[in-house]
Amino acid sequence: MKIVLIGAGNLATNLGKALKKAGHDILQVYSRTATSAEALAAILDCPATTDLTTIDNRADVYILSIKDKALRDVIAELTHSLTSSGGDLTEKVFLHTAGSMPMDVFKDKAPHYGVFYPMQTFSKAREVDFSIIPTFIEWNDETAHTRLAALAQSISRCVYPLSTADRKYLHLSAVWACNFVNHCYDIAAGILAAHHLPFDVMLPLIDETARKVHALSPHDAQTGPAVRYDENVIAAQSALLADDPELRQLYELLSKSIHRHA
Amino acid sequence: MKIVLIGAGNLATNLGKALKKAGHDILQVYSRTATSAEALAAILDCPATTDLTTIDNRADVYILSIKDKALRDVIAELTHSLTSSGGDLTEKVFLHTAGSMPMDVFKDKAPHYGVFYPMQTFSKAREVDFSIIPTFIEWNDETAHTRLAALAQSISRCVYPLSTADRKYLHLSAVWACNFVNHCYDIAAGILAAHHLPFDVMLPLIDETARKVHALSPHDAQTGPAVRYDENVIAAQSALLADDPELRQLYELLSKSIHRHA
Repeated sequence: MKIVLIGAGNLATNLGKALKKAGHDILQVYSRTATSAEALAAILDCPATTDLTTIDNRADVYILSIKDKALRDVIAELTHSLTSSGGDLTEKVFLHTAGSMPMDVFKDKAPHYGVFYPMQTFSKAREVDFSIIPTFIEWNDETAHTRLAALAQSISRCVYPLSTADRKYLHLSAVWACNFVNHCYDIAAGILAAHHLPFDVMLPLIDETARKVHALSPHDAQTGPAVRYDENVIAAQSALLADDPELRQLYELLSKSIHRHA
Repeated sequence: MKIVLIGAGNLATNLGKALKKAGHDILQVYSRTATSAEALAAILDCPATTDLTTIDNRADVYILSIKDKALRDVIAELTHSLTSSGGDLTEKVFLHTAGSMPMDVFKDKAPHYGVFYPMQTFSKAREVDFSIIPTFIEWNDETAHTRLAALAQSISRCVYPLSTADRKYLHLSAVWACNFVNHCYDIAAGILAAHHLPFDVMLPLIDETARKVHALSPHDAQTGPAVRYDENVIAAQSALLADDPELRQLYELLSKSIHRHA
């Protein structure tokens, strides 16, 4: 398929690489910032633009991977610009990749549209194996479905249909299981650094904590002072955080929450 | 070495198996509860007891893996009982395995003592590879050091000396990197279950989140709405948790904390 990527962030970069590898033809990369657009365009060996009025109108699929709050404006500008330059919207499918944005953000702007949500944490510096990424798709009609399903299955072996309503909760779960988890790692790293202890000693523990929930439910996998309700340890550890009231509050709320769910 | 295990919980179970595998002679298992003592004793093929006055007085090393708040009382009872039954404390080394308890908990109770802290999350149902567990040791004299170091190195390739003062912070970091992380998994599981979505779809994300911090610092690895400060998503996700004020408060505090550290 001929594809234009709108956005050149972490997700667009990893998705662009996977699409190119799968044999799709990336016509162009758009980003608000020239350096991002050019960096991804160089990787994908295609032109870059920072101007939505110059978007290539020959693509089969336009994939928008941009900040949620910019999505509505960019869709309006993009479809307007394609129509103005003689593009036929009835031949195109428009997709966004946002976990928390409804599919209907495209409504009345384009005839065929959908959502392509690959649930993973993407960093530009890190290549991921797209084939095992659970990818959740939603579509408004058969034209969108056919093209979206083919596109998704060309890069992932794990493609599932999911409604806007359920995707919101999936995305919320992903924030807990990834972003908040990573922040806990970051807090641990900060405590260790303050005491000149290397973060690397945490890795076997981090790995086992992740591996464990392949075999046990997180509820059954829980260990440590909070689930044992070892008040001495909880009070002593909370006191160690006395110089950072925000962190101390988080420590106490998380400990209470673990105990309440135990 | 001839070893008596005081405690039969998650850590004692995994440690006992590793010690037996390394060729040590487990003389006896003590636990306050008969079923725990007998279950571990059966695995280790040794006698069980629930009575500290019947502890075998022939061991070289006594390892206490019990709740922190019980530690002082059990040490007092144990050493008293060993002396009463004719055991010579000068020939024995006493160890505990608690991250947050000082080594000095043994002071004036026994001549040779130390701490053996294997930093890992242990569940009885799950066997772990002890050889890669970072194990932190502390000792009060050369007798304790010699025996403790030999014991630790017989089961782990990663043995480091660590003071009581630093171990407290290491343990606190471990609570963040493991127990709080696992609680975030558990919260994700709860949200998914409420919407009839399987937890298994989270595993590739959980695995990549853990793998990422082998290559990037947690700070550089962060992604998601909070670090982008995507206020629309944060507000919408917070609203999804409106029926659980505790969870909502945690969501907002964690999001703010990520943004503040970004």
